[in-house]
Amino acid sequence: MTYRIFDAPDLRDWLAQRPDLSERLGGEAADWTIREVSDGNLNTVFLVHGPAGALCCKQALPHVRVAPDWPMPLERALYESRYMRAVAPAVTGLMPELFAYSPDLFLLVMECLTEHEVLRSALIADRVTPGFSAVIGSYIARTVQATGWVSQPFETGAHLLEQFSGNTALTRITVDLILTDPYRVCDRNPEPEAGLREDVKALQTDQVLHRAVGRLQERFLSARQALLHGDLHTGSIMLDGADVRVIDGEFATMGPVGFDCGLYLGNLALHLCAAPHKAAALRAEMLAFWKAFSEDLRSGLQNAGGDQWALSGPAARKELIEGLLSDILRDTAGFCGLEMIRRTVGFAQVADYGLCATEAERLLARQKALQIGRTLVVESASLRSFPDILSLMGL
Amino acid sequence: MTYRIFDAPDLRDWLAQRPDLSERLGGEAADWTIREVSDGNLNTVFLVHGPAGALCCKQALPHVRVAPDWPMPLERALYESRYMRAVAPAVTGLMPELFAYSPDLFLLVMECLTEHEVLRSALIADRVTPGFSAVIGSYIARTVQATGWVSQPFETGAHLLEQFSGNTALTRITVDLILTDPYRVCDRNPEPEAGLREDVKALQTDQVLHRAVGRLQERFLSARQALLHGDLHTGSIMLDGADVRVIDGEFATMGPVGFDCGLYLGNLALHLCAAPHKAAALRAEMLAFWKAFSEDLRSGLQNAGGDQWALSGPAARKELIEGLLSDILRDTAGFCGLEMIRRTVGFAQVADYGLCATEAERLLARQKALQIGRTLVVESASLRSFPDILSLMGL
Repeated sequence: MTYRIFDAPDLRDWLAQRPDLSERLGGEAADWTIREVSDGNLNTVFLVHGPAGALCCKQALPHVRVAPDWPMPLERALYESRYMRAVAPAVTGLMPELFAYSPDLFLLVMECLTEHEVLRSALIADRVTPGFSAVIGSYIARTVQATGWVSQPFETGAHLLEQFSGNTALTRITVDLILTDPYRVCDRNPEPEAGLREDVKALQTDQVLHRAVGRLQERFLSARQALLHGDLHTGSIMLDGADVRVIDGEFATMGPVGFDCGLYLGNLALHLCAAPHKAAALRAEMLAFWKAFSEDLRSGLQNAGGDQWALSGPAARKELIEGLLSDILRDTAGFCGLEMIRRTVGFAQVADYGLCATEAERLLARQKALQIGRTLVVESASLRSFPDILSLMGL
Repeated sequence: MTYRIFDAPDLRDWLAQRPDLSERLGGEAADWTIREVSDGNLNTVFLVHGPAGALCCKQALPHVRVAPDWPMPLERALYESRYMRAVAPAVTGLMPELFAYSPDLFLLVMECLTEHEVLRSALIADRVTPGFSAVIGSYIARTVQATGWVSQPFETGAHLLEQFSGNTALTRITVDLILTDPYRVCDRNPEPEAGLREDVKALQTDQVLHRAVGRLQERFLSARQALLHGDLHTGSIMLDGADVRVIDGEFATMGPVGFDCGLYLGNLALHLCAAPHKAAALRAEMLAFWKAFSEDLRSGLQNAGGDQWALSGPAARKELIEGLLSDILRDTAGFCGLEMIRRTVGFAQVADYGLCATEAERLLARQKALQIGRTLVVESASLRSFPDILSLMGL
């Protein structure tokens, strides 16, 4: 079947011809309800419910959904399916199960998270069960173990490099929108609100900041430590009480582990800027995140049997792990800062600022995010411990 | 044509059917002289001379040439051809020209370097024209510019990661023979001469060394800075007076630039241990190497227009380049040390030790190489300048 953009009837016909999938739905095709819930920037998403169960069907569009004149190669769906298959065994229960991928239709069919809500919306609506960040910390640690050089024969990482380095269309978005555009004059940057114009100009001329961004560009492109989710913000996470799931792995690429950590923390910090009264709760989430991440990584790598560190006895191994964690901490701070800046002034901003009651409050929140972001980026290379990051956030 | 191991008559018939190649040789097939000159560990090599010109034909064998029970995938010839094509425009005149690659026969046909001698043999025979190391320094700097993230849109490096990460058979050799085996009991390690047994045992139990080796394993696997030659020792270089050529790129992989630098310098340092009376000349070669490498890299990267460092103005760019050079310097020292150790006690040792007049001298030379190698590996993380490396070598 050649590619075409599916509408609900197309999807119904296609599912009806796939016994493995229609069996999960149960009943007859006519009994199924199909609802389009497209929400992100890049894809159409349908939820299909039948008498026996439900499916989530996500199809790549040949252009940005919200900007039809911005073309976007369909292959990103292939990379998302590869990502899910590469990490699934390590993160069972922490991401939706992938039931099928159609390479012709660039269509993923996966477990439907009917009761789940996107973390960003849940945070904004104050409907979260505390502790969700520990799951994300654990999730990242487990993906590092499944895909990094310490736990696996080096051929595993080499194969992942081969499989994911072609994901250039989405990595180009990261390189442009996160690592470059906010610091230069660029058509993709939206016109800033009047009160923010000077701050935006400052970002574009700040040589100290640009040098630090340069080092982070270098880390992102050169430091191929493990398979990243690549877009792990609070809109890529869904939760239902304590059940937390990571979705949308289409940005997957081998890269520095601190990139996933930093994007996640950056989005919590953005929420903090917009809702400073939640400082205590967000501080607790950040601490829980790093505790789970670092403890799981420590215990996972202590006896890991990959090629990297194959010679090290227990004491040497401990030191090597702490060295790696220090590198990840510095990267985390830097990428956290970049995320805060780009989500405040760049192409894809966050809804969290909608929490601000007045325009003046929103301006202050954005300025705070830019200030914290800049400090994290510039200071990242000299940070020593996770509390250093919190203190730069005023926590 | 399906793969078979060529002998001279096979090769003659095959060349006769390729007008592009037989034209370079001139005359009739019967006029050509074919001489097998296989010398390395992995391939058969034929030199073909005709009335109009000459060709070098290199065919991959399905096993290690000197160890027929060690199987070796033929695809390494594919990676060598890819390497030559990837770097050729940047290093014109510094490597033989590739005329043809047969993917069926795993056969490369290239420029024949009739008058050239392998650098290692030339060094041993004292037949080198001083200054050859500057060419190698320049060669590495140019390959970094052609394949690294600073000079190119990131898609170039991503494509190289995709193209070369599958070269696992040869990278496995590097991971085992350079990064692991010399520091553990292993069947591939040859029985050391009696006087060296304690030194070999020390390598296998030295926790400080093992931790430093662990950090270098991490650098080799994670730091994907540019396309490496991957085996740049003095046996992979040929010269004829001032005409210096790099050959044998089958180990090519994206990796830390200091790996190529370190292997080259390590082989000069091994020669130094075997022939300490040549200290002044070798010191001059090492200085010339680093001067050419660092100056060419500086000038090449100062205005380079890749994604990495895209924001930096001239002053910030200068600082970023010096930071990168410091990283490369530390890696260079570390990989130099690893190469000295593995070529002294590992599977593939160097002929340079044949220069020692007596067994006692040879033992001393080897012990010196192990001592310098260990110091370079252990101290690498704290080195600041190239003279620091020379001083650890006693130069």
